Amino acid sequence: MTKWGELWEKSLRDISVEAALKCLDDAGVDKVDSITVGTMSGGLFNAQEHLGSLVADYLGQRFVPATRVESACASGGLAVKNAYMEVASGLSQYALAVGVEKMTDVDGGDATFALATASDYDYEAFHGITFPGLYALMAVAHMKKYGTSLEQLAQVSVKNHHNGSLNPHAQFPCAVTLDQVMTSTMVADPMRLLHCSPITDGSAAVLLVPLTVAKKMNKPYAVITGIGHASDTIALCQRKDFAKLEVVEVAAQRALKMAGKTIRDIDFAEVHDCFSIAEIIVMEALGVVESGQGGPATVNGLTALDGDFPINPSGGLKSKGHPVGATGVAQVVEAVIQLRGQAGPRQIKNARTALTQNMGGSGASSIIHILEAR
Amino acid sequence: MTKWGELWEKSLRDISVEAALKCLDDAGVDKVDSITVGTMSGGLFNAQEHLGSLVADYLGQRFVPATRVESACASGGLAVKNAYMEVASGLSQYALAVGVEKMTDVDGGDATFALATASDYDYEAFHGITFPGLYALMAVAHMKKYGTSLEQLAQVSVKNHHNGSLNPHAQFPCAVTLDQVMTSTMVADPMRLLHCSPITDGSAAVLLVPLTVAKKMNKPYAVITGIGHASDTIALCQRKDFAKLEVVEVAAQRALKMAGKTIRDIDFAEVHDCFSIAEIIVMEALGVVESGQGGPATVNGLTALDGDFPINPSGGLKSKGHPVGATGVAQVVEAVIQLRGQAGPRQIKNARTALTQNMGGSGASSIIHILEAR
Repeated sequence: MTKWGELWEKSLRDISVEAALKCLDDAGVDKVDSITVGTMSGGLFNAQEHLGSLVADYLGQRFVPATRVESACASGGLAVKNAYMEVASGLSQYALAVGVEKMTDVDGGDATFALATASDYDYEAFHGITFPGLYALMAVAHMKKYGTSLEQLAQVSVKNHHNGSLNPHAQFPCAVTLDQVMTSTMVADPMRLLHCSPITDGSAAVLLVPLTVAKKMNKPYAVITGIGHASDTIALCQRKDFAKLEVVEVAAQRALKMAGKTIRDIDFAEVHDCFSIAEIIVMEALGVVESGQGGPATVNGLTALDGDFPINPSGGLKSKGHPVGATGVAQVVEAVIQLRGQAGPRQIKNARTALTQNMGGSGASSIIHILEAR
Repeated sequence: MTKWGELWEKSLRDISVEAALKCLDDAGVDKVDSITVGTMSGGLFNAQEHLGSLVADYLGQRFVPATRVESACASGGLAVKNAYMEVASGLSQYALAVGVEKMTDVDGGDATFALATASDYDYEAFHGITFPGLYALMAVAHMKKYGTSLEQLAQVSVKNHHNGSLNPHAQFPCAVTLDQVMTSTMVADPMRLLHCSPITDGSAAVLLVPLTVAKKMNKPYAVITGIGHASDTIALCQRKDFAKLEVVEVAAQRALKMAGKTIRDIDFAEVHDCFSIAEIIVMEALGVVESGQGGPATVNGLTALDGDFPINPSGGLKSKGHPVGATGVAQVVEAVIQLRGQAGPRQIKNARTALTQNMGGSGASSIIHILEAR
């Protein structure tokens, strides 16, 4: 992946190619059979669609089949799934997945508008609600139903910023205190600035090959043993319980079943903490803890780097940043780095099995991958 | 497919669901395993991304994995390829591909802007050129290199409007004369209004299943035996010869090789006549005729409904309309209707093998399918 942040001196095509070249260099591969690009909205952020061809062209891979996939903020996870299908269907041996979003080329208002197109535009965004508001509704529902506290929510950000302070690619590689989170600017009650993932430019890439090919490459690799992909109603208001994310439950069940595992077999997870409340509901949906126990478990250190079930060792969306189409790919990058034992000061001990959970909108789509060390 | 046209009384979600339901009714299937939506720019046309989840939701297929794919005007062809990969990878048994674009909800200037994001925005659209201009450059190059005449170009539109006059789903189901085409309003010299495909609202859908499942369904079906997918430089100016479409040559070779066929084995084709010049260059790239012979062959009737190699029996993009993300899916729909012998007055005799060619931008991507009757 590239360094993430406000990359004013680089363009959409620059960062896509930078991440892709780093990936191909790491793998020792010059030529690929297909490219899948995960991007939420090249149209609204950059006045540029046709991103598959753009990336193939600037990567010097003329004539290579190139596909752009989109599932809002889960576009990156979808790119990895699509590359998996390229390989599993027999159409590709070397399938490159690139996630990218260049979000700072529009002004703040436009970025919020672009992101709002991940919701049900006619029934949600048109009437004025944006994503901080949607997740604030989920937070209020969770607080009311389970007694989740503001301190518990804030602890998610404290933990993720601690992890991100150990990640040189993070946009905000700085620790924050509980007090800083709890007194930061209010965005949509109870979501304050330090509960919210930022606007980010960034890209990440992974290369997928058949296992038989991977074995011959003499490079460290991880194996994708499970994929779970699900959708739900695009509008939050169509769902019965705002304090649940059923789409994550379903995707997790599918991924674990495919991998022949239970959540107890997973050593750590990268999850979609677009807002602090999201990490809490997601860990409950994955079955890491019972419903309602996400807040207390976070405060008790279960999900810390040295806890029994580390979550977001990379710093998560909160600290690492959230270039929406790149996030799902970067989750897989972090999983591979951890499984290879190359994560340095944020290395999780004896990490053998990882889960990555990427999410679109207010939970209208989710894609989960299970990766294992070899 | 839905009736195509200016569908002011229907929304993006309405027409997607209408086409999908017609498809599922035709197949006798209630529940699918995955949905792939091909759309070029929900963001710029409709302020709505996350289209996979939107369509799955409104189609009543909650929790179904849903993917949106984009390759500009080849997004529909890409949706069919993606559904093929869902089946071939073993992830889906019933894979639905829906192509949709709702283009009239923005005003004319915005539609032209949205379409221009299929080109290289920084190096093409930003400087003022739009697609009629890009294809006009290709037409001038072809005329200069091969002596292709204005009458030959106009004959493409005359033929396609004749075919479209026999297609009740077409946006403009009316015949036009050579004189009408040659005296229509100039758009970008030498491309006049009746050389250009229109702005259209529309949707189309196809269901893909493994052959073993298709045999048990007791419905007429066709088999996809070849897929060719390729990209090229996103900017036209980066290519050596404006009178060629190498991306189509490469995609055709790949599709024919996979199907174990040559172009002589193909009975008819649906091709991407976004502008009249496109059909001429595409038929040359496919190998239907030698380079430079597309114009004379069109005038001589080779590609007419009763010719030796009928092209665009549906009316093509010119007469049927061009809701960009839907076009590639509708090409496959027409191929299946013809292979089933259900095309009524536009039926091609003894049609057993079809080729569909969908294209993005000025030829920065192309996806070709070969379908065979069973």
